[in-house]
Amino acid sequence: MLVTFINLLRKTHNKYFSKERHFVERLDNVLGFTPVHVQLFKIAFYHKSTINNSLQTEKKNHVLQSNERLEYLGDALLSFVVGEYLFNKYIQADEGFLTKMRSKIVKRKMLNFLAEQMGLDRILMEFNQANLSPSMMGNALEALIGAIYLEKGFIYTRKYILNELVKKYINIHSLENFDDNYKSQLLEWCQKNTKEIDFRVISKSKNDKRDRFRIGVYIDGVEVATAEDFNKKSAEQVAAEIALTQIQS
Amino acid sequence: MLVTFINLLRKTHNKYFSKERHFVERLDNVLGFTPVHVQLFKIAFYHKSTINNSLQTEKKNHVLQSNERLEYLGDALLSFVVGEYLFNKYIQADEGFLTKMRSKIVKRKMLNFLAEQMGLDRILMEFNQANLSPSMMGNALEALIGAIYLEKGFIYTRKYILNELVKKYINIHSLENFDDNYKSQLLEWCQKNTKEIDFRVISKSKNDKRDRFRIGVYIDGVEVATAEDFNKKSAEQVAAEIALTQIQS
Repeated sequence: MLVTFINLLRKTHNKYFSKERHFVERLDNVLGFTPVHVQLFKIAFYHKSTINNSLQTEKKNHVLQSNERLEYLGDALLSFVVGEYLFNKYIQADEGFLTKMRSKIVKRKMLNFLAEQMGLDRILMEFNQANLSPSMMGNALEALIGAIYLEKGFIYTRKYILNELVKKYINIHSLENFDDNYKSQLLEWCQKNTKEIDFRVISKSKNDKRDRFRIGVYIDGVEVATAEDFNKKSAEQVAAEIALTQIQS
Repeated sequence: MLVTFINLLRKTHNKYFSKERHFVERLDNVLGFTPVHVQLFKIAFYHKSTINNSLQTEKKNHVLQSNERLEYLGDALLSFVVGEYLFNKYIQADEGFLTKMRSKIVKRKMLNFLAEQMGLDRILMEFNQANLSPSMMGNALEALIGAIYLEKGFIYTRKYILNELVKKYINIHSLENFDDNYKSQLLEWCQKNTKEIDFRVISKSKNDKRDRFRIGVYIDGVEVATAEDFNKKSAEQVAAEIALTQIQS
């Protein structure tokens, strides 16, 4: 009872009197509620490049960690909630189908799309001087989910994810038949058209202590597309996707 | 109110009068509660080899799917709950540390160990004619977590995972410094002892439509250990672990 009253006071302060009220208003529009812990939600929008450039060192470590920590929390919760949703929706489906469907929903590209639909880009732009990269969007969404969980608990966040993200912006049925395995699509096309296809590692470099691969797609010996990523499979997928658009155009 | 009363009746029936009462008693010992939905918990212990061998075809598909479906659900919930636990326990740790710690807790080997501690092997043996493989243990634990969630909801299952698994059987602090990257340990040992080391793919086969690799570890040209798995990295890890015990003995 006392806690509820104190939280009400804090929300009123956050919304009308704090110097963060502009941010709180934007958040309120996205979330549908006024947060008690504004600092938590601010962290969700801080990208590490911004922190490295602008904050004092003493603040730096704390905020930097917290930002990626929220992503870690939100990412795992999103996986579970989406997984449970699919489990209940497809009561006859096997584990393989459920896993594939989930990965189509929680993959980076979809999260970036969802974050854009929600208008997170506008909030992100206010917090970060650097240009927005697509992955900053998806990361902010994951961190935001982590923050909502810490503020509101499981039941609320689960409902939020399902109603405000999954059901609002994703056409689940069209995802069922959506084939995002571009490499296998390309292999199939080459087989049908009796072309020889080859994926080659063009170069391997170190980036931030991690291996980074540049992969080329060669059709009948001619380089059709290249792509880079931290693992070969992802780079092959991107290269194959580009190659497919080249072929179809 | 009515639902509570009906559930109480069902529990009483399950515990004292049903033909499953022996199973229910065993479950009760493991879980600390009498389940309402006994069928759900039975499914958690059915391994697909048993189903393929013994059940009628009409039942087969349904039960087979459900078993792996429960694993899918439990696996994702376990990841989130363990992730949140680590998030709260290590408030200064970065996302990399949290991810590593989580993977040490939810990895197959640890799940098999936990299932053994809980005595799931005895229940599994009653349900399956086939010899128990270690991975059947971990899978059953995941499926059991899925079943507990469906019966009892999030709050209860979260508490169960933390109190009855993580805090009861895992020494978190000793895991912090536990290095489970055997390949890197072996590479380090070879460098220190000026030995040449080489990992080679000895053979590649198809098993259940998936590639299976046999990897050999060669120290100064001599084969020290071999291991098989569905991906090269895992096979290398297992082979390196065996090689390390060879060296240290």
